[in-house]
Formats: sequence, structure tokens, C-alpha cells
Amino acid sequence: MKLTILGCYAATPRTLTNPTSQVLEIRNRMFLIDCAEGTQVQLRKNKLKFSKINHIFISHLHGDHFYGLIGLLSTFMLFNRQTDLHVYGPKGIKEIILLQLRLSESFTGYNLYFHELTSKESEVIFEDEKVIVKTIPLKHRVYTNGFLFQEKPKERKLNVEAVEHYNIDTVYYRKIKYGGDMTLEDGTVIPNAELTFDPEPVKTYAYCSDTMYDESIVPLIQNADVLYHEATFLESEADKAAKTMHSTAKEAATIAKLAKVKQLLLGHYSTRYSSIELFRAEAETVFPNVLLADDGAVFDFD
Amino acid sequence: MKLTILGCYAATPRTLTNPTSQVLEIRNRMFLIDCAEGTQVQLRKNKLKFSKINHIFISHLHGDHFYGLIGLLSTFMLFNRQTDLHVYGPKGIKEIILLQLRLSESFTGYNLYFHELTSKESEVIFEDEKVIVKTIPLKHRVYTNGFLFQEKPKERKLNVEAVEHYNIDTVYYRKIKYGGDMTLEDGTVIPNAELTFDPEPVKTYAYCSDTMYDESIVPLIQNADVLYHEATFLESEADKAAKTMHSTAKEAATIAKLAKVKQLLLGHYSTRYSSIELFRAEAETVFPNVLLADDGAVFDFD
Repeated sequence: MKLTILGCYAATPRTLTNPTSQVLEIRNRMFLIDCAEGTQVQLRKNKLKFSKINHIFISHLHGDHFYGLIGLLSTFMLFNRQTDLHVYGPKGIKEIILLQLRLSESFTGYNLYFHELTSKESEVIFEDEKVIVKTIPLKHRVYTNGFLFQEKPKERKLNVEAVEHYNIDTVYYRKIKYGGDMTLEDGTVIPNAELTFDPEPVKTYAYCSDTMYDESIVPLIQNADVLYHEATFLESEADKAAKTMHSTAKEAATIAKLAKVKQLLLGHYSTRYSSIELFRAEAETVFPNVLLADDGAVFDFD
Repeated sequence: MKLTILGCYAATPRTLTNPTSQVLEIRNRMFLIDCAEGTQVQLRKNKLKFSKINHIFISHLHGDHFYGLIGLLSTFMLFNRQTDLHVYGPKGIKEIILLQLRLSESFTGYNLYFHELTSKESEVIFEDEKVIVKTIPLKHRVYTNGFLFQEKPKERKLNVEAVEHYNIDTVYYRKIKYGGDMTLEDGTVIPNAELTFDPEPVKTYAYCSDTMYDESIVPLIQNADVLYHEATFLESEADKAAKTMHSTAKEAATIAKLAKVKQLLLGHYSTRYSSIELFRAEAETVFPNVLLADDGAVFDFD
């Protein structure tokens, strides 16, 4: 599980900082999460292949989270993309995109599917054989969802010495990796535990931006390997956080502690502060394992 | 008259090149012409004051000319702008912007006026006491206008020696600068020509992007000081230019020659070419005075 931060600052794009967008690579899938203005250039700078993105998740319809979407979709057209593309986001996103394509008399050569979200309860919005994605309803000024990315259980690891010892044919390996026992020709049953090792543990990534402090998300993100939680302000600006329905670093850390996540990743910083290290320092007073998102940062969580 | 090129490449924003946007400063007015994705960052990089922009001209609704507009308007909101803002562009631009503001539940604290264009004839779209702006109808795949920025005649320059010689009171200076003769107390009439020098000549800037080769624009841009004309392709790709309704460098130069402009400024280059100098070389076979736009370039035409 690898996360690349394309942008992690609040509000407006600036010369050296970018608003929110990140790429999660998990089990060979590449998910784009939010897509602020400039995201396509950030993808290029970080040498991420546009063509590997098939699913884009938009948390909410504030510009610093989606103004780059129309440009990215247009670039896919120019690149003559053929593969299906899925966009998950609040109701209204389809109208915004299609209006602009219609007025520019453009047609996508690829199928563009919109999955418009309206539910205020968590729901599964993507699932294949390896990964499942659920919404995390958040509390912000407009309808907003976070996203929970969960690996499905991996196949068990073959104990090569054991299978060779029992002279098991390779055609049975797949069955064994999926937990099956093995019956030998003489009728002896070899239990799976003797033929395999436990698989690598599955990973979970919870993305929560933008939101006010909200303990109701804790059950959804319980024990996540990584929680990205917005921290737009420090406690010294707690009044501004409350007014704008954002969180402070301390509040983000409190959620991390309550949810017993392994690591907290902070982002969506207001640019008013002299150093993002201030966010880490404040969060660490509550929760020990704090990482800082920064534009271009790559986190390998394997 | 000063022109800053924020972006001058066709199609998609890349790591080192930006799609179309430029700032024309003329008689203390600052006009933004086209506004591709990334324009607000380019404004910052070029240290141009956002707050001085009161008029934005959008040539057409292809993404590489206007996807940055919604972000810039949003940033004006964040900056708590109060001054009126005027946007001139094809019909549909108002719906695109207002839909996004509505869905993000945002309200501009400033008055945002849309001047939607539909005419296929040249028309005056802006006029004040110093500058007049007319459309230049262009031929492209969608409804497109270029823009002609013309200075109005300037006031004459006072001949300080002469007015002092005749002991003329300063209250008459304004009348004299506007061309009036002066009657002295003894009844003698001093003709204006004796009291003033000719004013600086007025400047004209013609912006033509995007368009196929079209001689019908020649009368509109006749004798312009500077003609910016798109040159997406070289003659070696003349078939592509025709198919996509763009121009070659040679075609741009032919228009410049027919219109007897003083200087031709090329831009909107396809990124397929190894050097933009190839565009200059091709254009110079037809017209001698060729300048090359490039991102961040500043041209002082005074």
C-alpha cells in the first residue's frame, strides 16, 4: 500500500503548495482521491501514469478538492483513452462535468461512469476481488464523504518445503493457497495449516477530509493502518475551525486515539502557519504516531 | 502597453508548459485574456496582483482557455474581494460558473457580471475613457472570438517652455492638452500647435487564438501594433491544422502581412515540436518581424 501526496494544503493553489489530491496504490490498483486544480501537473511531476487511474473519488464539491477533475478528464480525451473511467462523488458532479464537455462540443472516447453519492450512511461504493471501498460520511459545510479503502484477505502463502515433501502436484496449489486441505492418493488428509503460512495482514486506509471533529466516524475507521485526517488549524484557531467546520491537529489526533489506528497522517493545512511541524507537535500531545503529508511525499505502508 | 504571457501552449498543462493565458496592461488597466488551468499560480509566479484584474476575456470554451476561471473566481472569494468583476465570453460560461458556485454553496462577496457573447460580427464589448475592446470573430471548432484592445487618443503633451513664455495660468493646461487654442488677456489667440507636442501614438493589440487561416479578420486588425496569432502547427502538419481548425506559423505570418501589422507574436504551439524557434523560422519566410510567446515572457511595447 503506497500513498503519494499530490497536494495537501487548504484553499487556493499557490506557487509552492497544492490543494488536495492523492494517489493510493493498493493491490495493483491506482485510486485517485480528490482532484484539485493542478492535479494533472502533479501527476506528471510525480511520474504517475495517467492511464493507470480508473477510479476517481471526490470527497465534496469545494474547489480545492475537485477543480482539476474536468481538466484531467479532458486530458484523458486528448490521450485517446479507451478504458472505462469511474468517478465517485456528490450528486451534481455529473452535471458539472457534462455541461462543460457539452459546451466545448467534446466527446470522451472512453466510457465515463458517474457514481453520484447522496447517502448519509456509510455504503460500499467499489468492490472487486482484492479491494473494497466504503464511504465515511463526514460533517462539513457541504455534503462530504471520506473514503475507507480496505484490502480483502490475501491468499495464504505456500509452504514450499511441505508441498514438495508430500509431492503435491502444482495444479492443487491454488486450492491450497485459498485455504483448502489436501487429500493424498492414499486417502491421507493433510490439513491446510501444515501446507501454508498465514498471509500478510490486510491493510486499511481511511481518508477523512474535510470534516469537523466528529466521533461518529470512529467505529468506521477502527484499527485502520493509516488514518488521513484533515488538520486545517491548530488549537489556537479552534474558533476558526469550528466556524468553518474544519478540525484542529489535536482533534484529528483525538479521533486517531479513539479509533486505535496505527498511524495518523495529517494534512489540509491552512497556509497561515510558518511550519507544518507545528501540526505534528500538537497532535503528538494526544497520539504518538503522527506523520505529516506534504506535496510530493510518498509513503510506503508495506 | 505591456503583455505578460502566463501560458502559450496548446492542449494540456504539463510540468514545464502552460495552456493559454495572458495579461495585457494598457493605460493602467489590467486585462486577463483567457484563463487555462493553473492561471492563478502563473499570476503568482509572475508577481501580478490579482486585485488589479477587473476584466477577464475568454475566447472560447475549450479547456485549455478557461478551466482556470472557476478557481480564480473562487480565490477572489477567499481573498474577500469587493470590487466588481466582469467576465466576457461565449454563451454558456455563466451557467458553468454559477452551477459550480451553487453546488459548493459559495457566494461571491463581489459583483460578478457576465457579458455573454453570441454575435458573429465584431462588436464593442468594453469601453471607458482610455481603452476600447472589440471582438474579432474567429473560425474554430466551437464559437470563438479574438479580442482587439485599442487605446483611445491620448492628450497632447504640454510645451512647458511655450506656456511659461505666454505666462498661461495652470487652470488652462487641461484645455490645452485636449487640443484647445489659448486666448490671452490682450485678445491674441495662440494656436494649440504652438503650445503642445503631438501625443504618443495610440497602441493596438489584437489577440487571435484559436482560429483557422481566415483572411476575413484582416480589416479588423489592420495596422495593429502587435498581432498575437495562434500557430499550433508548422506547414509540415498543415493537414492537422486544417482538420483541427488551427493555423500554421506560415498562415499566421500571411495574416500579419496582409494586415500590415507592426509585429507578429506567435503562440499556442503544439508540444510535438523540439523547439519553438521552428515557428519563428517558418513565419519569417513570409513576414519579417516575428516574436515568440513563451510562458513567463514579458513584452513591453512602449
